[in-house]
Amino acid sequence: MISNKKNINIAIIGLGQIGIYLYNELLKKKKEIEIKTGKKINIVAISAKNRNKKRRFKIDKKIFFSNPLKIIDKKKVDILFECIGKSDGISKKVVEYALKNKINVITPNKTLLAKHGDHLAKLAETNHVNLEFEASVAGGIPILRTIKEGLVTNKIKKVYGILNGTTNYILSEMENSNETLEKVLKKAQKNGYAEPGDAKLDLNGFDAFSKVRILSALAFNIKISKNNCIMEGIENIELKDIKIANQLNLRIKLLGISEIINNKLFETVHPCLVNKKSYIGNVNGVMNAVITEGRPVGETVLQGEGAGPGPTSSSLLSDLYSILKGNIKYPFGIPYNRRKNIQSFNNEDYANSLYLRFEVKDKPGVLSFITNRLAKYKISIKRIIQTPDKKKKTATIVIVTHKTSEKNSKNCLSIFKKNKNILKFPNLIRIYN
Amino acid sequence: MISNKKNINIAIIGLGQIGIYLYNELLKKKKEIEIKTGKKINIVAISAKNRNKKRRFKIDKKIFFSNPLKIIDKKKVDILFECIGKSDGISKKVVEYALKNKINVITPNKTLLAKHGDHLAKLAETNHVNLEFEASVAGGIPILRTIKEGLVTNKIKKVYGILNGTTNYILSEMENSNETLEKVLKKAQKNGYAEPGDAKLDLNGFDAFSKVRILSALAFNIKISKNNCIMEGIENIELKDIKIANQLNLRIKLLGISEIINNKLFETVHPCLVNKKSYIGNVNGVMNAVITEGRPVGETVLQGEGAGPGPTSSSLLSDLYSILKGNIKYPFGIPYNRRKNIQSFNNEDYANSLYLRFEVKDKPGVLSFITNRLAKYKISIKRIIQTPDKKKKTATIVIVTHKTSEKNSKNCLSIFKKNKNILKFPNLIRIYN
Repeated sequence: MISNKKNINIAIIGLGQIGIYLYNELLKKKKEIEIKTGKKINIVAISAKNRNKKRRFKIDKKIFFSNPLKIIDKKKVDILFECIGKSDGISKKVVEYALKNKINVITPNKTLLAKHGDHLAKLAETNHVNLEFEASVAGGIPILRTIKEGLVTNKIKKVYGILNGTTNYILSEMENSNETLEKVLKKAQKNGYAEPGDAKLDLNGFDAFSKVRILSALAFNIKISKNNCIMEGIENIELKDIKIANQLNLRIKLLGISEIINNKLFETVHPCLVNKKSYIGNVNGVMNAVITEGRPVGETVLQGEGAGPGPTSSSLLSDLYSILKGNIKYPFGIPYNRRKNIQSFNNEDYANSLYLRFEVKDKPGVLSFITNRLAKYKISIKRIIQTPDKKKKTATIVIVTHKTSEKNSKNCLSIFKKNKNILKFPNLIRIYN
Repeated sequence: MISNKKNINIAIIGLGQIGIYLYNELLKKKKEIEIKTGKKINIVAISAKNRNKKRRFKIDKKIFFSNPLKIIDKKKVDILFECIGKSDGISKKVVEYALKNKINVITPNKTLLAKHGDHLAKLAETNHVNLEFEASVAGGIPILRTIKEGLVTNKIKKVYGILNGTTNYILSEMENSNETLEKVLKKAQKNGYAEPGDAKLDLNGFDAFSKVRILSALAFNIKISKNNCIMEGIENIELKDIKIANQLNLRIKLLGISEIINNKLFETVHPCLVNKKSYIGNVNGVMNAVITEGRPVGETVLQGEGAGPGPTSSSLLSDLYSILKGNIKYPFGIPYNRRKNIQSFNNEDYANSLYLRFEVKDKPGVLSFITNRLAKYKISIKRIIQTPDKKKKTATIVIVTHKTSEKNSKNCLSIFKKNKNILKFPNLIRIYN
């Protein structure tokens, strides 16, 4: 038990961007941590794929292990940081093995938690150790701690926000610099806002979705859901959409949303058109923001840097501090067997106003074909903007609709795939009210 | 020790708006608290000035005590909520007596903490109990917990924000409804956003200032300062200022600011002109917002409802939860004797761009008198708006200056007191950059 010990042994597994920054922070803040917690920390083991890789800070090779599992066998470790990433493979093995050996685990690994969080939480509870993962959602923003502790007795019915800094940076930068997604993505990778060559899980919404799963479990005291959900990324957003949104006084944001609707769980990630003057419409660049709606507290907003080794390390150290204070906690706030399973809301009933952008041949009858089809499905139109491109003999038609369900819009739009005058299946962006 | 007990006895002292709401919440959430913490709570004693006052929820008169100090003598209390308010008198006596008797104390009382926080924290530490006061700053926003735990190892250099819901509501409502401060204040009192007949401490900035003192102590690991500071409220803000601000694309907000400048502490509360498009310019109504700047986490923003029994109760219960988890903590994050004393920044060196509104007789030479005086003090002018009132033969002159120090502006403006053509000592509002 941490509470009976003065000296605490720490291992760090994974020395990439995050791990190496954390390693350096721990060395720097040793003294301060001792003052605040009364515990002396010692880094007794580190491990990474490549011992000799060039790193931002120098490592102590005497404590380097090639096989992280051996650390657990050979060293007396009290707290282990898993900074490898990925939901399976060695990261999962290390975390499992550590928990089984009564070692507290801290990790920023959202995909591991979103996939195996229930299993790992149970393992931690059985072994009376902590599994902490503040850094897995929204980087430096202490949102998990806020839900688990700061808002602990509130009844939360909705959590949503901008949960991925990379895509938020890309959308902001496309608007600011008037450049395509591809160009801006390269810039993001160059500036360290996106992993080089591995941006797919950011772009397609998967990263944000893992965070939504974790937030739902904490906010609603439920098991992590495995439901099929609407998950869309920003891959199909074109500069044209950003410009048109601007004309409409709207801005595109990739939102993660988790909500209890009629006692059912609804989780989703997709691009939204939000009012340019709204709060969420002004969270730009790499910033993340999480909004919770609870009773009796009302709306609470947390905003901060969502990515990067600095903010992530801030969260990892807050977890360390919590463990050093001898604070044994349920990883998801309540005991494993008290967390409920919950029915999922039918995605097809999800209803929104829609922005639809058609690229069509500039011929008579095309607009009327589109509007007729919409009328047939009782999708009423709020606004139409048609802009011809005379050179190409094409036109862009943007239609903003009143609210309609996913099911209805899918059925309605299906026919546009087959029409020769419609050059592109319409780009659909939901409007967040 | 809480950690060895299954049944926890609670006393609530003070059954005003906050106390009675808390009492009801505790009864309602007993079961949920037991699931999350494993502890059974029992309210064993309540106390208030008036036993028979009409209250929002019914109380159990069998556990009512007229003298709160007797509760501590007669009942085995583990945790005491002090909801009386005021910095001295019975509230201070109860808290001291409880701590000395090894009873954990939870309080939303900011004036008590701002004045006697160091003394009370020492008392709590000596007696190995907790003194928790999350609800004392920014209502439902878990800002103290975030600084103490979520951002624990960050080096914070600045904390600022909108810390008083009443004045923020008044300023927003003056702008929205085009009504004077007096009228809007009455509306606020009617709607429960301001204490009836007792709004002075909100209006003059004292309430926000107490919160600044508490935030400084936590953010910078220092003793609560007793420095003389610039503390101005919104009493002198007129509808005219709000309208002119609007024309300048600015909005008036009462900001509390605490900052380390050259290793010295600078604390202040005063109205600021902020950009209407900025984040802080869009925190309206009863909302509070606190912004921290720290390393390595960067900027963190927390926003939520800053007042009212619901949000306050949310924070009080988060403190209860923390104590029930057996988490013995230093009230200000680090041991009493490790908290530093810090020199204070010289207020006279505080520098800002200024908004100056003069009401003058509409006579030749008046403007040149003003501008000459400003020039003499090297206060350069960014903008002038002069609006004549032909009927009254007066004019309003608004001058926006470049940055100048408090000392310089005070010296410069002093002469305007004596000039017969200047009808009103200029209304000065600092512009927040």
